[in-house]
Amino acid sequence: MMSFDTIIRGGTVVTAADTFACDVGISGGKITALGHDLGDAATIIDATDRLVLPGGIDSHVHFAQPSGDGIVMADGFASGTRSAAFGGNTTVLPFCLQEKGQTLREALKHYHSLAEGECHVDVAFHLILTDPTEHVLGQELPALVEDGYTSLKVFMTYEGLALSDRELLETMSVARETGAMLMVHAENFDAIRFLTDRLERAGNTAPRFHATSRPIPVEREATHRAISLSELVDVPIMIVHVSNREAMDEIRRAQQRGLRVMGETCPQYLMLTEKDLDQLNMEGAKYVCSPPPRDVASQQACWEGLQQKVFSVFSSDHCPFRYDDPQGKLAPKGRTSFRWVPNGIPGVATRLPILFSEGVVKGRIDLNSFVAFSATNHAKIYGLYPRKGTIAVGSDADIALWDPKRKVTIRHELIHDGADYTPYEGLEVTGWPVLTMVRGKVVVDNGALIGGKDHGTYLPRAKPPKAATIP
Amino acid sequence: MMSFDTIIRGGTVVTAADTFACDVGISGGKITALGHDLGDAATIIDATDRLVLPGGIDSHVHFAQPSGDGIVMADGFASGTRSAAFGGNTTVLPFCLQEKGQTLREALKHYHSLAEGECHVDVAFHLILTDPTEHVLGQELPALVEDGYTSLKVFMTYEGLALSDRELLETMSVARETGAMLMVHAENFDAIRFLTDRLERAGNTAPRFHATSRPIPVEREATHRAISLSELVDVPIMIVHVSNREAMDEIRRAQQRGLRVMGETCPQYLMLTEKDLDQLNMEGAKYVCSPPPRDVASQQACWEGLQQKVFSVFSSDHCPFRYDDPQGKLAPKGRTSFRWVPNGIPGVATRLPILFSEGVVKGRIDLNSFVAFSATNHAKIYGLYPRKGTIAVGSDADIALWDPKRKVTIRHELIHDGADYTPYEGLEVTGWPVLTMVRGKVVVDNGALIGGKDHGTYLPRAKPPKAATIP
Amino acid sequence: MMSFDTIIRGGTVVTAADTFACDVGISGGKITALGHDLGDAATIIDATDRLVLPGGIDSHVHFAQPSGDGIVMADGFASGTRSAAFGGNTTVLPFCLQEKGQTLREALKHYHSLAEGECHVDVAFHLILTDPTEHVLGQELPALVEDGYTSLKVFMTYEGLALSDRELLETMSVARETGAMLMVHAENFDAIRFLTDRLERAGNTAPRFHATSRPIPVEREATHRAISLSELVDVPIMIVHVSNREAMDEIRRAQQRGLRVMGETCPQYLMLTEKDLDQLNMEGAKYVCSPPPRDVASQQACWEGLQQKVFSVFSSDHCPFRYDDPQGKLAPKGRTSFRWVPNGIPGVATRLPILFSEGVVKGRIDLNSFVAFSATNHAKIYGLYPRKGTIAVGSDADIALWDPKRKVTIRHELIHDGADYTPYEGLEVTGWPVLTMVRGKVVVDNGALIGGKDHGTYLPRAKPPKAATIP
Amino acid sequence: MMSFDTIIRGGTVVTAADTFACDVGISGGKITALGHDLGDAATIIDATDRLVLPGGIDSHVHFAQPSGDGIVMADGFASGTRSAAFGGNTTVLPFCLQEKGQTLREALKHYHSLAEGECHVDVAFHLILTDPTEHVLGQELPALVEDGYTSLKVFMTYEGLALSDRELLETMSVARETGAMLMVHAENFDAIRFLTDRLERAGNTAPRFHATSRPIPVEREATHRAISLSELVDVPIMIVHVSNREAMDEIRRAQQRGLRVMGETCPQYLMLTEKDLDQLNMEGAKYVCSPPPRDVASQQACWEGLQQKVFSVFSSDHCPFRYDDPQGKLAPKGRTSFRWVPNGIPGVATRLPILFSEGVVKGRIDLNSFVAFSATNHAKIYGLYPRKGTIAVGSDADIALWDPKRKVTIRHELIHDGADYTPYEGLEVTGWPVLTMVRGKVVVDNGALIGGKDHGTYLPRAKPPKAATIP
Repeated sequence: MMSFDTIIRGGTVVTAADTFACDVGISGGKITALGHDLGDAATIIDATDRLVLPGGIDSHVHFAQPSGDGIVMADGFASGTRSAAFGGNTTVLPFCLQEKGQTLREALKHYHSLAEGECHVDVAFHLILTDPTEHVLGQELPALVEDGYTSLKVFMTYEGLALSDRELLETMSVARETGAMLMVHAENFDAIRFLTDRLERAGNTAPRFHATSRPIPVEREATHRAISLSELVDVPIMIVHVSNREAMDEIRRAQQRGLRVMGETCPQYLMLTEKDLDQLNMEGAKYVCSPPPRDVASQQACWEGLQQKVFSVFSSDHCPFRYDDPQGKLAPKGRTSFRWVPNGIPGVATRLPILFSEGVVKGRIDLNSFVAFSATNHAKIYGLYPRKGTIAVGSDADIALWDPKRKVTIRHELIHDGADYTPYEGLEVTGWPVLTMVRGKVVVDNGALIGGKDHGTYLPRAKPPKAATIP
Repeated sequence: MMSFDTIIRGGTVVTAADTFACDVGISGGKITALGHDLGDAATIIDATDRLVLPGGIDSHVHFAQPSGDGIVMADGFASGTRSAAFGGNTTVLPFCLQEKGQTLREALKHYHSLAEGECHVDVAFHLILTDPTEHVLGQELPALVEDGYTSLKVFMTYEGLALSDRELLETMSVARETGAMLMVHAENFDAIRFLTDRLERAGNTAPRFHATSRPIPVEREATHRAISLSELVDVPIMIVHVSNREAMDEIRRAQQRGLRVMGETCPQYLMLTEKDLDQLNMEGAKYVCSPPPRDVASQQACWEGLQQKVFSVFSSDHCPFRYDDPQGKLAPKGRTSFRWVPNGIPGVATRLPILFSEGVVKGRIDLNSFVAFSATNHAKIYGLYPRKGTIAVGSDADIALWDPKRKVTIRHELIHDGADYTPYEGLEVTGWPVLTMVRGKVVVDNGALIGGKDHGTYLPRAKPPKAATIP
Repeated sequence: MMSFDTIIRGGTVVTAADTFACDVGISGGKITALGHDLGDAATIIDATDRLVLPGGIDSHVHFAQPSGDGIVMADGFASGTRSAAFGGNTTVLPFCLQEKGQTLREALKHYHSLAEGECHVDVAFHLILTDPTEHVLGQELPALVEDGYTSLKVFMTYEGLALSDRELLETMSVARETGAMLMVHAENFDAIRFLTDRLERAGNTAPRFHATSRPIPVEREATHRAISLSELVDVPIMIVHVSNREAMDEIRRAQQRGLRVMGETCPQYLMLTEKDLDQLNMEGAKYVCSPPPRDVASQQACWEGLQQKVFSVFSSDHCPFRYDDPQGKLAPKGRTSFRWVPNGIPGVATRLPILFSEGVVKGRIDLNSFVAFSATNHAKIYGLYPRKGTIAVGSDADIALWDPKRKVTIRHELIHDGADYTPYEGLEVTGWPVLTMVRGKVVVDNGALIGGKDHGTYLPRAKPPKAATIP
Repeated sequence: MMSFDTIIRGGTVVTAADTFACDVGISGGKITALGHDLGDAATIIDATDRLVLPGGIDSHVHFAQPSGDGIVMADGFASGTRSAAFGGNTTVLPFCLQEKGQTLREALKHYHSLAEGECHVDVAFHLILTDPTEHVLGQELPALVEDGYTSLKVFMTYEGLALSDRELLETMSVARETGAMLMVHAENFDAIRFLTDRLERAGNTAPRFHATSRPIPVEREATHRAISLSELVDVPIMIVHVSNREAMDEIRRAQQRGLRVMGETCPQYLMLTEKDLDQLNMEGAKYVCSPPPRDVASQQACWEGLQQKVFSVFSSDHCPFRYDDPQGKLAPKGRTSFRWVPNGIPGVATRLPILFSEGVVKGRIDLNSFVAFSATNHAKIYGLYPRKGTIAVGSDADIALWDPKRKVTIRHELIHDGADYTPYEGLEVTGWPVLTMVRGKVVVDNGALIGGKDHGTYLPRAKPPKAATIP
């Protein structure tokens, strides 16, 4: 006989495929029943006129990473997961960055210590490999994948992070052998340095030249190269933060050749352009991220990438720095050249409202696709499914209750992160998460944080399934 | 408090997005709960080691259509829906063929009278327009769409069926205004006649010349033309029974341009080739259908069309004629030339096992895609969702219980249709529907027909949603 | 020992491949020597600072065709070939239009009688088939091809001209058997009528709606269809007057599949847009031609078609009607709807200066490509090579002496045709033909007509070579 | 009054555009007249039934380059240019290889000393940059380009030769500033090393694994990367020795985007496959070159690249090593692994007969395209035009007299190079160069070498023209 801790009553449940009016019965932090007449429970949540969505999973966020040169990331785990919860997210996947000379175990120990007891939502780590020694690749990584760290990320650019093609191939080989998922930041490092040097020699150092220093072919080239290397090794990859049609088309061409190449895009590539970087004084620094926002045609291309399912996931690439702060965007060196402006913008709280409002409400994508892009596909690709990512019997009761009609003007005070601005200040959106529940416990309710930062837990993950079809 | 007529216990429920272990509670012919501990019910169906799938929806079947020249279609509604039920289907969409000079109402009256009391599964009708007079287009069709006949089909070939481009445009305009879904049989009539005449002049009349008379460019051309006309009118269309890469690529190109062009493929294009038409005596006539099966590369292309979701639905195009029968494939005129061999092959019972075995078991598509292609997308595109096409609270309890490991050798005696052969005789498949339930009532159980032919009912349909994303 | 009637001295000879300083020795109307020190001759033409180009060949002009409804084409052979000569042309290929019920022989007899003694430059006829009876296709056409009428044109639109797909296929079969070259006007007739009716019903009858009535998909569809039909028959075709990227891409895709599909574009698609049709009163009628001019992106596409050699020839599609004339653009019926405005614009005299100025001078194409597009490829494709189309020993001395620096503002008084306007009035061009020589005889010299209208002669033609590579 | 040293009488002159019967008058090593009745001359060469073609220009040959490890290239300038002359070539462009630490001037001095007085045909040098220091790029290279060394080559693979992306960009910048033409060997070095190591670890060391170690994506990736880098710098490039469809398609896509990217293919990619590397003992070593020959579909793709003019030039990549020689293919290290087998095969003498026989005679390309691919385009792209590469008044009298009907079975004794085999031994070809003339002097006549090795001269070159259209 069924009994429930909580019943969400009267809402419309949405999954990546289905939409149906249904109550949701929750016990022990899990969804245990979906039905029309589930009886009573200690807690009844009224979901009349609400959508009952799987809580957002943001598989691309940066918390507490060191940034060098005295720069400090604006969010640690507490503020980062808090902001995530306000944005309707129930799981985030930040990165554990291996520093040169460090073992992966050492790095993980450090990030676990930072996260421990500091999370409002659930958390798992991608490993960033920067020093793929024989020990790391041959010993540590296989063991860690078995331990549930089933995804890794590599960079093709950035001083101290970029791997050579040889290192990429060796890392891909281990990803193939272990079954881990590989994320690739695809930009050509040499080209960026060449163009940056040339711009600086010409005195072009304002933030807007950040965009000029990494034009579309820089990203397209690296995308094609990453795909080619993965083709040689025969391993699936995820190209993260795709910003334009040309890179998107490389992914599409690969998919059409039958390769398991996946893509991700982010709100900044739907909503910003390089013109945002071109402002008085240093204001443009607020929008410095990589790849840079492009133009309106590129925005359209990224929408098409979602509509035509070239992309599987929509993430924030939340990478926050304070603006008016010498340890942030206005660091002393950053004022001398765009080269030194820390790369990254905040976005973990605004990702879902933006995709809902600009995508679903404006008729560009349907509601089920919204769920797939914001939650389900993240869970499937990164080994959290079916525990996470859907509203189904047996899954964690990770739920975002959504008011599809609420109109909100985005203001930084709604974001609750550690930054001092949002790139979307003043944007009006329709649709807003009014309640966030993690494993059956409400963590945000109508704009109020509920409970402490010890509810979020670390999630070891399964290997991504060798699914026949790209999600 | 929940109580149930029936509980399907211990199975694994699969939807177009999700897979989860869950009991299914059924009351009043509807799914009323999904949960782990649903209590008791009058009927308990043990689904241990079984997949609980939405019953198949076959949106492309022909029953009881007149074929001229004394040819008789092998299935009426009774045998056709019986065979469908044996194949795990719970809804079929046959055609109501308007004959020249007939009104649509007259045609519908006739098909309803044929179907009434003769159906083992649920049924809805697509309208075939052959005589798009001003009255039909301006008066009848808009009223019928409002009445729930929300899809129509047009032919670009066949004597007596083919519409001119002008008629296609006029029909498309009405589809646009009324919101009906338009299906298109895309082959160039003039080209087929030209090639057929040329073949006959050269004495090439054996069944295998059926394939030669309608080569790939004949289909690709008409596909491109249908898409172009729909583009002028700005109306979604479904290109049915796509057989090869070139036609598939036309659909893909259209989708990439942002058009709402959808595609369907069928088992014969995955499993047969034109070599099947090239047999001793008239045996090849068994495989005469249009478009004709092509070659192995075309089969691969059709698989890619499914894997890459260029196609939205997988249908049987069940169009059965008896082989050894002067009113079937061996009609006297058919023996004189392929031109007169009735076009069409049976397949309503074999569609799902073939897609499951060749697709899911062989790792070409995943299980959720199987559900989408076999049921959910049909329901969404043709206005039956969410009543049909999924396992969700509130939906009809239309369920196929599937044994994913059962190995079956396809024999005609398993098919239970009105034909005297199956094109897939001897094919071994893994996975088989062991129980078919329509609105809570079991209609086939482990190879036995349960109950009479009065359970199936006619389904008026909603207009297909103006979804942002092609299913 | 060499002696010459004429020597062109001191110029720069240009062919489709080469550019070299060289004198040209001419005897008996032929080029008999190229060299540096050719001795003396009765006539010495100083070509210092001049380009010595093959005279232009315009393979797409309309003279003296009946237009119905009391409309009269503005040029017969005398004024048409005169204007051609002023524009640097030495050969033109007008059409011989078969009228319904007429034999081809009758039609030819008529056009020969119109041309006889009326030509300033050389002339050959393409046959327009409008009534492809068995007699025409089976008897007349094969004989006429043998007689030197080695090209034919078919229409996919226009009342009284359009052929059905079946007729196209039958005609293509004869083209294949006889080796004749087939030109296709590719627009979908039904779609144009459908759109035209719809526009008229809505009261949209101004000239600018001519463009709306035949949008790009109308042309792309017919282009794809023509290509598909030619693929079925395995015969080369020339798609004439391509106006946009989509149609161009269809040709390119066909070429990449290995088909011998060729393309032509015209000055109006490089220089005009549909905005030219949108003018006060009826002024837009001046620019009514089919396909209609499109937009700036389409112009760019047509340039790319030339630069990337998707197109082989650049023709005028000279089809002149007087503007301010009740027998021309301002015919009474034409004032009631764009449907009745005669289709066509003049351009035989402006084709070469426009391509030279906008193409060569502006760096879009090189000089040798100019020669290929304006003369050599026409000769090769239509069976006039090597007699026509190049500067080579043994070829006819058909030469345009070109001042590459001369700046000219196009005015109608420079055109010398039978129309009363030029669509390019006021356009400044750099480069101008300062002397036109046909078979060794100067016919235009520095803006003055030399000699009478009896110099031009009819040219029977060879079959186009089955060249391996598309020119 | 014209007088001539030599008249070639009665032949058919062929240029890249034209074909015409014509005598050729030669004085002072130049072509001074083309005509029908050129009078008399000291030397009359009867060209009845012969084609009079521009002598072949082979813009990709390696002579006398050091190969390390005791390997010696089989040809120096004497035997290399001798073999070239036997193959109908009149100009070759070998490489001047800068060794690490060397200045370009030093390298040039060395190669000039090797070439001086040792050449049967004319010669110019491409510079291979391996050490692009600031001095080399900033000082030497600009001066050398002005001195007539107007092309350079860079490698993306090979130990000691490969440049980094940054070095490629810097070199491209200088190419852009100076107007030099840049040739790129496009294969991914890291990927080759990775795959080679893996193969060796698995004990796969036979010559056939050379092909496995550099599969198509290795070449496609580098091709795309080279194009992308050139796009960033906005400089034309030539991708040399393209071997397959995927790399060809990258070039085509770039051309369609409007980039000035050119391509070259070679006889080995039309005639050999990787199966040639798979032979008993070390015989496969005879076919080891990079990129490796692929398969029949790749051959077809390379033909299409020529037919559709994706490629501009057809070169030999003559890079000869003796087979049965410890200083050649059978070097001691080479026997231990394919990694050490010297890369390269001979082909300067067989290039033209193979293209003529397989291309022109078999109807794949026309005669004018043969001339363009074998001579004219090389001259235009590498700054030798119009002095070289055509039959035109004022050009050097560099002529290959060709018997288009002669059937020859290729045997190594016909090749006259320094190698001990030809990869095409036993191949029957139709068409053969029966006389080779360099600047008016016959150097090979009917299989006999005429005159000494001091006739060939060094050719300083102009910068390639900024032509609007890719040749």
